[in-house]
Amino acid sequence: MAPSATDDSAPMHLPAASKALSVNASVLYGPRDLRLERRTIEEPGVGELQIAVHTTGICGSDVSYYKKFANGDLCACMPLSLGHESSGTVVALGPQVTGFSLGDRVALEVGIPCGTCGICRKGRYNLCKRMRFRSSAKSVPHFQGTLQERINHPAVWCHKLPDSISFDAAALLEPLSVAIHAVNRAQPTPGSSALVLGAGAVGLLTAAMARQSGCSTVTIADVDQGRVDFAIAKGFATHGYVVPRPLHTSSSCSSIFSGSSSSSGTSTPVDGVMTPASTLSMQSQFEHAKALAADMLSLTSSRNPLLVPADDNDEDDGVDVTFECTGKEVCMHTSLYATRPGGRVIMVGMGTPVQTLPMSVAHLREIDILGIFRYANTYATGIRLLCARGSVLPGLDDMVTHRFKGLANAHQAFELASRTVDDEGNLVLKVVIEA
Amino acid sequence: MAPSATDDSAPMHLPAASKALSVNASVLYGPRDLRLERRTIEEPGVGELQIAVHTTGICGSDVSYYKKFANGDLCACMPLSLGHESSGTVVALGPQVTGFSLGDRVALEVGIPCGTCGICRKGRYNLCKRMRFRSSAKSVPHFQGTLQERINHPAVWCHKLPDSISFDAAALLEPLSVAIHAVNRAQPTPGSSALVLGAGAVGLLTAAMARQSGCSTVTIADVDQGRVDFAIAKGFATHGYVVPRPLHTSSSCSSIFSGSSSSSGTSTPVDGVMTPASTLSMQSQFEHAKALAADMLSLTSSRNPLLVPADDNDEDDGVDVTFECTGKEVCMHTSLYATRPGGRVIMVGMGTPVQTLPMSVAHLREIDILGIFRYANTYATGIRLLCARGSVLPGLDDMVTHRFKGLANAHQAFELASRTVDDEGNLVLKVVIEA
Amino acid sequence: MAPSATDDSAPMHLPAASKALSVNASVLYGPRDLRLERRTIEEPGVGELQIAVHTTGICGSDVSYYKKFANGDLCACMPLSLGHESSGTVVALGPQVTGFSLGDRVALEVGIPCGTCGICRKGRYNLCKRMRFRSSAKSVPHFQGTLQERINHPAVWCHKLPDSISFDAAALLEPLSVAIHAVNRAQPTPGSSALVLGAGAVGLLTAAMARQSGCSTVTIADVDQGRVDFAIAKGFATHGYVVPRPLHTSSSCSSIFSGSSSSSGTSTPVDGVMTPASTLSMQSQFEHAKALAADMLSLTSSRNPLLVPADDNDEDDGVDVTFECTGKEVCMHTSLYATRPGGRVIMVGMGTPVQTLPMSVAHLREIDILGIFRYANTYATGIRLLCARGSVLPGLDDMVTHRFKGLANAHQAFELASRTVDDEGNLVLKVVIEA
Amino acid sequence: MAPSATDDSAPMHLPAASKALSVNASVLYGPRDLRLERRTIEEPGVGELQIAVHTTGICGSDVSYYKKFANGDLCACMPLSLGHESSGTVVALGPQVTGFSLGDRVALEVGIPCGTCGICRKGRYNLCKRMRFRSSAKSVPHFQGTLQERINHPAVWCHKLPDSISFDAAALLEPLSVAIHAVNRAQPTPGSSALVLGAGAVGLLTAAMARQSGCSTVTIADVDQGRVDFAIAKGFATHGYVVPRPLHTSSSCSSIFSGSSSSSGTSTPVDGVMTPASTLSMQSQFEHAKALAADMLSLTSSRNPLLVPADDNDEDDGVDVTFECTGKEVCMHTSLYATRPGGRVIMVGMGTPVQTLPMSVAHLREIDILGIFRYANTYATGIRLLCARGSVLPGLDDMVTHRFKGLANAHQAFELASRTVDDEGNLVLKVVIEA
Repeated sequence: MAPSATDDSAPMHLPAASKALSVNASVLYGPRDLRLERRTIEEPGVGELQIAVHTTGICGSDVSYYKKFANGDLCACMPLSLGHESSGTVVALGPQVTGFSLGDRVALEVGIPCGTCGICRKGRYNLCKRMRFRSSAKSVPHFQGTLQERINHPAVWCHKLPDSISFDAAALLEPLSVAIHAVNRAQPTPGSSALVLGAGAVGLLTAAMARQSGCSTVTIADVDQGRVDFAIAKGFATHGYVVPRPLHTSSSCSSIFSGSSSSSGTSTPVDGVMTPASTLSMQSQFEHAKALAADMLSLTSSRNPLLVPADDNDEDDGVDVTFECTGKEVCMHTSLYATRPGGRVIMVGMGTPVQTLPMSVAHLREIDILGIFRYANTYATGIRLLCARGSVLPGLDDMVTHRFKGLANAHQAFELASRTVDDEGNLVLKVVIEA
Repeated sequence: MAPSATDDSAPMHLPAASKALSVNASVLYGPRDLRLERRTIEEPGVGELQIAVHTTGICGSDVSYYKKFANGDLCACMPLSLGHESSGTVVALGPQVTGFSLGDRVALEVGIPCGTCGICRKGRYNLCKRMRFRSSAKSVPHFQGTLQERINHPAVWCHKLPDSISFDAAALLEPLSVAIHAVNRAQPTPGSSALVLGAGAVGLLTAAMARQSGCSTVTIADVDQGRVDFAIAKGFATHGYVVPRPLHTSSSCSSIFSGSSSSSGTSTPVDGVMTPASTLSMQSQFEHAKALAADMLSLTSSRNPLLVPADDNDEDDGVDVTFECTGKEVCMHTSLYATRPGGRVIMVGMGTPVQTLPMSVAHLREIDILGIFRYANTYATGIRLLCARGSVLPGLDDMVTHRFKGLANAHQAFELASRTVDDEGNLVLKVVIEA
Repeated sequence: MAPSATDDSAPMHLPAASKALSVNASVLYGPRDLRLERRTIEEPGVGELQIAVHTTGICGSDVSYYKKFANGDLCACMPLSLGHESSGTVVALGPQVTGFSLGDRVALEVGIPCGTCGICRKGRYNLCKRMRFRSSAKSVPHFQGTLQERINHPAVWCHKLPDSISFDAAALLEPLSVAIHAVNRAQPTPGSSALVLGAGAVGLLTAAMARQSGCSTVTIADVDQGRVDFAIAKGFATHGYVVPRPLHTSSSCSSIFSGSSSSSGTSTPVDGVMTPASTLSMQSQFEHAKALAADMLSLTSSRNPLLVPADDNDEDDGVDVTFECTGKEVCMHTSLYATRPGGRVIMVGMGTPVQTLPMSVAHLREIDILGIFRYANTYATGIRLLCARGSVLPGLDDMVTHRFKGLANAHQAFELASRTVDDEGNLVLKVVIEA
Repeated sequence: MAPSATDDSAPMHLPAASKALSVNASVLYGPRDLRLERRTIEEPGVGELQIAVHTTGICGSDVSYYKKFANGDLCACMPLSLGHESSGTVVALGPQVTGFSLGDRVALEVGIPCGTCGICRKGRYNLCKRMRFRSSAKSVPHFQGTLQERINHPAVWCHKLPDSISFDAAALLEPLSVAIHAVNRAQPTPGSSALVLGAGAVGLLTAAMARQSGCSTVTIADVDQGRVDFAIAKGFATHGYVVPRPLHTSSSCSSIFSGSSSSSGTSTPVDGVMTPASTLSMQSQFEHAKALAADMLSLTSSRNPLLVPADDNDEDDGVDVTFECTGKEVCMHTSLYATRPGGRVIMVGMGTPVQTLPMSVAHLREIDILGIFRYANTYATGIRLLCARGSVLPGLDDMVTHRFKGLANAHQAFELASRTVDDEGNLVLKVVIEA
């Protein structure tokens, strides 16, 4: 790794990219088989920038690949560099690139759609069938992630950063994009109430975006007291709810309601955990979810002195929008019971692909169930939000709880990223690696 | 029953309602325990009309009450008159009623919302918690259905009929309302493609409404060849698909994909049928649904000579909107696989309250799942549509396949309505009872 | 006037309303002919509350009636009590009222729609043809305003207040409702940019609501430096722009861009001012508006270090939403030039009924022009917003710059409300009268 | 001109494009200075097809350039081939083109957006600032129109045609796209009522699309009886209204309400006609427009026997959507008065850039004013619609009233296209030129 690549003050000491170059890359060859190796990088092609990657955040899907060389149904079939929450510096410009200069700091939007199919033309490019997404095993050959010293990337998918946005915050524009997309799909009106299940990185950012976009009460729920406390202390949510862990099945239930931080639309399975379905009947699960939902709702209604018969009774019927950020079936149950008639449940967190749900609850109360897959048209928005004056959006830098310097330390970073607290008992929210 | 009540030419021979009156009513006291009895009807109150009921269509939920004295979770707890697809004639006007005259022919909108709660004020009155709906056991005391000679009904929920709309068609405005509401929620754009699962009354009307509102291909699917043929012959859909019945389990599978005709948001359980889950693994069910979906899609794509790479490949990825009108789990599976990324699945048919679904299919492809519960603001629309010149909407009168005169014959009507073919092998689509 | 009516601590000293009662009312008989007189108030009828009015804010339309006995096209034809921004206390309950108790503090929603016509049922009750709105001359006999000691009002249009909302803030829920409705129609997405023309009460509240609902930059513009400074100091907007007054026509131009505070959907004409059209050619007016728009836009873009070619160039093309709150033609010109292709111009301020506009600017760039008339379904939202934790919405109490106690002082209140600064040179934003 | 280029049966007799080729082109050098000249065409570049143009329809904007070498504000500054309603056959494929074969019949979408700016990515590519549109003088050097024997065009903007769509209909996909886009913006719900002002090609197609997308009554209005008769006879609209011509100013008023057929978002000024503003006061113009609107509305309400007090009174308040297809100020007046509260006015026809409008009518009744500029994402839709079974959409071939073979006859074609009837008194709707 060229040390200067991670030196903010002097990125231009790097020799200008001339012809092919040899760079360090962190490459995964199998479960936990992460290797630091040299790769050759060509000059940037037409329309491309060469980026010295500065910061890469680790996402739940990265952790899944790291542990299993697979993410949900997607199995890697060749060596794969991970990382897709990324920021860096322009170190070379390919032909026909305009609007960028050497030294520009950028955030990378790492999914490249075809740009010409019907769905791309209609603006929903995240659903493009020919999408290539860095660090995902979906397209073959795999589109390599950003845990490399340098990459070439299309200039139109690089977003220039103002000085006020740090490399950390810029890397977090990726999970923030998921949150922005979730809120765009939810379309809350001013004064809406929101519930966010899961207080991992994506849950926190989704809660913050719900607040930013006009929700007046945003309750965040998680089994982890530390995460809930963080959410409230930092202003990500207005109300926090710690999901109680049943006494008799503490091990299995620790997985329930633990916020997944998968932000790239791929799953974060929890290993070795029995699904509750095997022990509880489905009906008692529903009763449990219903009670849990009522408990969460009481949090905002009990502190609300309003009991007006006409308009305000509605509030007790549920929140306007629930963002399900854990990917867990039991949380979908809770989501359906916690949402008011005519409201929306947004499926954010990937997880259980097959779910047994009380669909009549959604059907009879016209609760829309909307999934989100990654994001589209969110980066410029994210940059604007981070620059906004007097926003309710908390600073993203606080979310980076752990930092590793050098690709050689990626292994340790992944190990830590798969935990919720570190050895000192501190909260693990977002681990970043600086190349 | 006063004979003149069913005599269109002379409804005014009835004595004007003065003081209380004794009328016939068909009343259900328990499973299949339908009695014809005399009830006393008061003069219409403030804002009410007294209506001599002419025609009542039988809905799947009526059949359910008839057979089990219950409909899904709702159990009747007192004698209940059935019927909510209804038309009749104004025979008396209560105080403060304006805009109506004796002899006016009307369609009845039989659900009365509170009108003042938050959700009523926002226009989604079908979701009003205080809704009272005739023939449903939900509110206690039950709000009695229209299988009575006369009823008093709020004038603002009576819709005056032009001469061109028959009493039959007016009664069918109720299931048509369900279809209109389904299409309003689906919001198809011009040239959209639609798939309708189930070719019962609601499925047929939903298909017709999808065509009416601009869908250029509307494929209707059912296990019943007769229904599919009817749909195509009468112009309810552009393409028909007969779902093949597996050889080895013909009895149980006859229930799969048979269109429910429940239009009032209540379920039509099919008795004594094993769910497929017990015999097939969930995964193979999904594979089956996927194959079925592909087969349905090939119907429209194979006849489409377009294979343009850019825009039109999208069509092979699924329809823009699927209307699930059977309430069956396996049909929800098929719906999810048959819908394109970014499309919508509308849950129309009530049925299986708890469903095991491949939710990741909806999640990863951002397929919105929207339920509909009855309807709001549809009757005036329905009347306009039935009066429209040169509409693609088929006449509703054709859908009335069987007619019974006199409330005394209600028992026979319900028995027939629970079948799909009559003794002569003719299609049973909509059975009506004329009071 | 019973003194206790304005005594917050002891509203219950009032004798319970038994039979008819005599109360003070401020009644307008002609231009500036405001009289304090005794009126008889009956017991509250079915579904009504009797309210001891506590606070009434004065709106631009009230001032118009006060000065001309007319508001735009609407001429009063009988004595009229003014006032529709109102809060008070429940002092008597009519039959069949539920959910309220004596002593409840309430905000009044003073427009009563019919509740049963098509547009009411669809949720847009502000457009109901049969709407009766207090203090407006539109319906005859006029529906009397709240500058009376007590009024009877339908309970369903009274909104119960939590203790944390003052009577002042509750009265301001009325103009806040206009702002909420404006934002509901604008539907900004997170990170949108907004421009608000006019920094009167409605402009300020609209700016605040734009911020609350997720706009990351909100520029407010007015000719009055004091109002712009107030807006920024109090956090109503993120950026302020003082519209320069041309030297040679200072008198006429002082009216341009002065924020109207009409919140009830009726006009506030400015007396005796020549329209600019008579002195400037239309084309040069357009050039002026275009230059003004560019200047306003530069405010946010010049401070924005982003000049990325792809996404961010869009920002220089205009804001996402412009809220025109002055009702002036020249401001509509500026609005059209200041809005980006595909954006929206919301007409909030009433004013010039006939306008000469560069419509091709809107047409060729698909800028939607949406008017708002009063509001619907906003009061419950407003109450939630005022109770929200950590909201960006400024407190409304700061907006009350002047207060008069006693209906006898209404005359002085109206005189002051027609000015923008008081004798001491202090800003006049909202004048309230306490009964 | 190679004769085989217009010979449908043998387009492949053309020598395969090898190297540069010389072709005929019709080129405008100044007002009415149309020349047939030879141009050199290169081999198709990367991603391009070479198209032998078969049919080009003449649009109002083409006629404007032909007569004045300008279209509205846009002045041509170099020789310009006209034509943008175009179909043809693939005669050569550039590198990297997939999905096309020699001999494929295609419709051309002639506007090429940048594809990468923010607004392109959001799906509204018709608003792209860098759009290059054939036959328009907007971009310099001008992007040449399709009145050439052959052109090279990006494959992704060529739409393959099924056999059932003729070259004529394929050329008309361009104005149909305008109509589709207009309806997409209007978003009519099932059973909506629509009014279309102007029965030129675009007005007719817009009316047809309004019907196709679910409007149950579509009234079309024009001063020309022949056009209105055509619209009704062919099923483009359900009701027709012939706007009466005032006796005293027959010459000037013939221009009022004559449907413009400009489909490409550029204006079709009518030469030498005084605007009514010079003769009538604005207020009497408004009264006239109001009376005209009422007369048009009576057409549908007088034949409607419904006079129900609740829902149906709404109909008398105006149509749900008005499509203004003439670009004339007086028609915008009529549009505003003819639209119901809460409805929409869609500005389709370009024309008077500056308009004096009764904006308070739109403001107080919340009538949205939406412009449309060309179209986006409409061609695939149009092709689907033309292939649909049993559609209410009339065949487009009927609209081609006059045909000229050979580019040498372009002059005559333009002369005829600027008239509304030919020498025999036959209607002139759409003139096409076959290369």
